Amino acid sequence: MRYHKIPDETVRRLPLYLRGLLFSSQDLQENISSRKLAEVLGVNPWQIRKDFSYFGGFGTPGVGYNVEKLTKQIKKILKLDIGHRATLVGVGNLGAAILAYPGFKIYGFDIAAVFDNNSKKIGQKIGDVTIEDVAKLPMLKGRQIDLGIIAVPRGSAQEIANILVDVGIKGILNFSPCRIDVSKKVKVITIDIAMDLARLPYYMPSS
Amino acid sequence: MRYHKIPDETVRRLPLYLRGLLFSSQDLQENISSRKLAEVLGVNPWQIRKDFSYFGGFGTPGVGYNVEKLTKQIKKILKLDIGHRATLVGVGNLGAAILAYPGFKIYGFDIAAVFDNNSKKIGQKIGDVTIEDVAKLPMLKGRQIDLGIIAVPRGSAQEIANILVDVGIKGILNFSPCRIDVSKKVKVITIDIAMDLARLPYYMPSS
Repeated sequence: MRYHKIPDETVRRLPLYLRGLLFSSQDLQENISSRKLAEVLGVNPWQIRKDFSYFGGFGTPGVGYNVEKLTKQIKKILKLDIGHRATLVGVGNLGAAILAYPGFKIYGFDIAAVFDNNSKKIGQKIGDVTIEDVAKLPMLKGRQIDLGIIAVPRGSAQEIANILVDVGIKGILNFSPCRIDVSKKVKVITIDIAMDLARLPYYMPSS
Repeated sequence: MRYHKIPDETVRRLPLYLRGLLFSSQDLQENISSRKLAEVLGVNPWQIRKDFSYFGGFGTPGVGYNVEKLTKQIKKILKLDIGHRATLVGVGNLGAAILAYPGFKIYGFDIAAVFDNNSKKIGQKIGDVTIEDVAKLPMLKGRQIDLGIIAVPRGSAQEIANILVDVGIKGILNFSPCRIDVSKKVKVITIDIAMDLARLPYYMPSS
């Protein structure tokens, strides 16, 4: 099920809410007020109420939100109620940092296949996965992987994206600082850390 | 000058527009239509018109946008019309990837100081900067640095943030997967790559 007309900013915040709920579910009571939830998450109560209103709101007046129900609902909206398997392409500094990143598991993500073109890296085991030859990426089909993470140099990103689309990947998280053009059936989110830094001065007090 | 009531989503897109303008300024004519600009940037024309409308719009009907003026204006809004010096704390895989990242220069950013606590790394030179002992971070004042980038393990992030605030840093880009609490006078943007991945399935077609 796809809910329509949810603003991107709200979709952006839902994983934050979900993480907060999952991390603190042991410490929380069965029901929680939007004020308390906001406190746990470090955001404004009105923001939470507004974001949840797009799905009809999940709270009961005077009672608040049921933590378990809310968690399930957000997972369902984000389509995280089923697990997702991802492949990472490129194990340079950034790729290695992504592999070591502790935060994927709580959303039900499993980085199940990892590729590089460096013969010294191919065959190395990192955690549970073995780095495979990127030349074998076109054979990924049938391994139940629906997400791709691209962490290769700029010049190779489009080529890798094309292969990922060919093998049936439906969503790409792109860390290469360049635009990737693929079929509209595939969603690409590009993370450009310079762009995030570029937003900072806007919010800083004038000195 | 701080423009008020600009939605965060618009502020988020302005660096994208700016990058597109800076990258393609040689190829562009003096004036450009929103349709052509949208094509260059890979976004919708209505999006550009809407985003620019928050600042009174920069286009002239029938003529379009003046590329030079538009570039200057966006830089000014984002407070990127003056250069910014940043410090990076933590040179693990992620920190090294950030240092190697090619995209900072076009926004006028200079990573001018780098710190780590690993004695093997301290004293090493990466590009133009030498890795300094993080124990000396409290002595950063007076080096004209206004931005901090945190790429240390989760357990140390808050401590590092506190020191950065003490030495007068006004904006922090936090890559540690945890919340950082600082004075409201300091803007913190936390980048959680797992959260970005968690947004992907929402936009993916149901299979």
